[in-house]
Amino acid sequence: MASQLSHVINVSQFNRDNLRALFRNSSILKQNIKKSGKLDILNGKIIGLYFDEPSSRTYGSFYVAVKKLGGDVLSLNSETSSTKKGETLYDTLKCIETYCDLVVIRTGLKDSLEDLQSKIKIPIINAGDGDGEHPTQALLDVFTIREERGTVNKLIVSIIGDLKYGRTVHSLIRLLSNYDISFNFVSIDELSLDENTIRFLEGKNIKYNSYSSINDIIETTDVLYMTRIQKERLNGEEINEEFIERNLYLTQEILTNAKNNMVIMHPLPRNNEINIDIDNDPRAAYFRQMENGLYVRMALIQLLI
Amino acid sequence: MASQLSHVINVSQFNRDNLRALFRNSSILKQNIKKSGKLDILNGKIIGLYFDEPSSRTYGSFYVAVKKLGGDVLSLNSETSSTKKGETLYDTLKCIETYCDLVVIRTGLKDSLEDLQSKIKIPIINAGDGDGEHPTQALLDVFTIREERGTVNKLIVSIIGDLKYGRTVHSLIRLLSNYDISFNFVSIDELSLDENTIRFLEGKNIKYNSYSSINDIIETTDVLYMTRIQKERLNGEEINEEFIERNLYLTQEILTNAKNNMVIMHPLPRNNEINIDIDNDPRAAYFRQMENGLYVRMALIQLLI
Amino acid sequence: MASQLSHVINVSQFNRDNLRALFRNSSILKQNIKKSGKLDILNGKIIGLYFDEPSSRTYGSFYVAVKKLGGDVLSLNSETSSTKKGETLYDTLKCIETYCDLVVIRTGLKDSLEDLQSKIKIPIINAGDGDGEHPTQALLDVFTIREERGTVNKLIVSIIGDLKYGRTVHSLIRLLSNYDISFNFVSIDELSLDENTIRFLEGKNIKYNSYSSINDIIETTDVLYMTRIQKERLNGEEINEEFIERNLYLTQEILTNAKNNMVIMHPLPRNNEINIDIDNDPRAAYFRQMENGLYVRMALIQLLI
Repeated sequence: MASQLSHVINVSQFNRDNLRALFRNSSILKQNIKKSGKLDILNGKIIGLYFDEPSSRTYGSFYVAVKKLGGDVLSLNSETSSTKKGETLYDTLKCIETYCDLVVIRTGLKDSLEDLQSKIKIPIINAGDGDGEHPTQALLDVFTIREERGTVNKLIVSIIGDLKYGRTVHSLIRLLSNYDISFNFVSIDELSLDENTIRFLEGKNIKYNSYSSINDIIETTDVLYMTRIQKERLNGEEINEEFIERNLYLTQEILTNAKNNMVIMHPLPRNNEINIDIDNDPRAAYFRQMENGLYVRMALIQLLI
Repeated sequence: MASQLSHVINVSQFNRDNLRALFRNSSILKQNIKKSGKLDILNGKIIGLYFDEPSSRTYGSFYVAVKKLGGDVLSLNSETSSTKKGETLYDTLKCIETYCDLVVIRTGLKDSLEDLQSKIKIPIINAGDGDGEHPTQALLDVFTIREERGTVNKLIVSIIGDLKYGRTVHSLIRLLSNYDISFNFVSIDELSLDENTIRFLEGKNIKYNSYSSINDIIETTDVLYMTRIQKERLNGEEINEEFIERNLYLTQEILTNAKNNMVIMHPLPRNNEINIDIDNDPRAAYFRQMENGLYVRMALIQLLI
Repeated sequence: MASQLSHVINVSQFNRDNLRALFRNSSILKQNIKKSGKLDILNGKIIGLYFDEPSSRTYGSFYVAVKKLGGDVLSLNSETSSTKKGETLYDTLKCIETYCDLVVIRTGLKDSLEDLQSKIKIPIINAGDGDGEHPTQALLDVFTIREERGTVNKLIVSIIGDLKYGRTVHSLIRLLSNYDISFNFVSIDELSLDENTIRFLEGKNIKYNSYSSINDIIETTDVLYMTRIQKERLNGEEINEEFIERNLYLTQEILTNAKNNMVIMHPLPRNNEINIDIDNDPRAAYFRQMENGLYVRMALIQLLI
């Protein structure tokens, strides 16, 4: 099944079968890399990374994924590329297609990749398109839940923070709908779940509840998925910072009420949603989550090439 | 002959003999890369890429050329380098000379490389200097004509668009003067061929004619060389966009009057001079032209190292 | 001794013993690289380069050092990384820690690395922190004196120019205090040696004298260490450019009074402190100094990995 994928554009391309195959390959790569440091699967191949928005983790993990698979990277961004001269994303991709064997794209333009995939001959991986999708993040998130808890089924997943604009959240909810999951959503009105996603959940008959404080859900939660709150999203609106912090930020005090095997996740970068004194808590899985991104992205590249 | 080159600064360094050798090597590299993916000619060598202006294709093709020859790339630009601290191009090159085996330079400073080549111990390749020259583009252009038509002689080459500021055009006309070629130039008054190039053509006794619309030359043309029209070049002048489009833009309608084996070229990036619905026309050679850039640049690096 | 280092943050970590070991390894690497071009000591390793300020030489030499040791580089800067999204340097380093085996950092934030080194599991090399320290520059400076003169002892070292803000100067003076050296300092009032360094010298009982013109010290100097004068440092102050030039700039005329084996050094980039017509003087060691940076940085990476 998994071998039928020729691009990775959105999470609707994934189902239980190709997810199982992908995660098995991610695990195998994890073991091999820890043992050997570097493989030679991509020997002689060039992977294009085109990022027109900044990113440390996504860029860094794709870059290292290619290197650890033995390939080379051509990096272009909107500053160094001819985008500055008015070139369209299509023409930039025709250039990358000429010189590369696969391209990873982060773009501020939502949904642009759906249209482009049929026109470009090399595989495309969507590394985040505007406030659209961020499928590889969702894939590494689910892989992390599987690694931390052994299974993705019969869990209560609570997602906290920016449910409206966060592309990670949109992708994650859709991907988790492949499993037997129930959701808690914790947010403030201005950042609550978008209509589209609500319709998706109701169409699929998936259990979910909405809350306004992290305290309401902390005791029953299996996976606590924190997200970054971008103050600039609230621009012009009357926001009460204290209110946001009290309800949507994780502190050690709140954590005392959590399960011992609860998994704390965050796609990073964080602002202040998770205090750094929590970093050493064994339940803090966000740095392991970041590492898992490397193996899942290696597995995706291997799959498409 | 070709082996006498120690830098590639402008097209006047090339003649029929070293062009023949260069293109033969480019063809051999093309075959070898398509067969093996990667060579090890540059093993242990570092090539410096110093670009103080953005570029996708030229940067990308040089980068991939080095990688496919088995070498490593050190990329510097004016943002990340000490140019920001007032360092001269000479001193930046002394730095690159210390760490690299060859340097490829794109700079906004016209003619600066002529002067620098004698002071720098490693080979320099000019990847475009201001509105001066862009010799590697002209070389890949001529190589492409040769690949598409089997010969560069006895052809009618029509160059359309910005003949005044386009460094590509200046280099290409001079390089093609090594062959038995006649030119058509199609432009508007504000962008017509510069005095220098006109004097060059007349000194060499090369046949050329000037026109104001692409329709005037489409039936007899063997190679149609389109160029990008930068609206900002026309700043402050009374321009009629519609007039430019009707006379200097290629459409499918115009193409119906062209020869079946006409070669459509463009150095890219394009703005709107060539409609994307022409991309699938078999005569559209601009993406193959871009690919040829890889092999010609590999051959140049191999020649100089 | 040298093997006890787990980070390179400031020059106080170095003493005669680990300096001797480091310089011996630097010499060996110099020979091996000149013979073989490339080694495979870092095979399968990824070195992170995080530079939030521009730099040609330091960035370039670290980059090439990694490549010549057979490793791969992940480059991030504040433009391309999530620093743009408000991420702290700590969190950015946690990301680099996940994907890399060692990180080289240049940051505008003075003293930030002291605090971070205990929280990051991979080795850190300080490549310049604000106007704090620049230890690898000082190490390559001392290595260069040793290479040029055979010894670092019993020399008169004169440092010219910006003694107040230059982090290179601060690190170099401290590192040279391990040897039997006497100092001349030549500057103008606005740029004279900072209180901290004066206290350091007096605490260590090291001989030094201050002067206002390069002419005062040229005849007795063994090592002439020129530094860049950043006009913007003098912002708002009444400066007399002519006065600076006459007293702090090196010219061929001044050089006629210098010893035949005097060593002229500069950390580069330079502005106008050393006229380029001096570049070919055999005493001009600044380009060799730059090359030595490669070997010292290779030795440091090898030591920490």
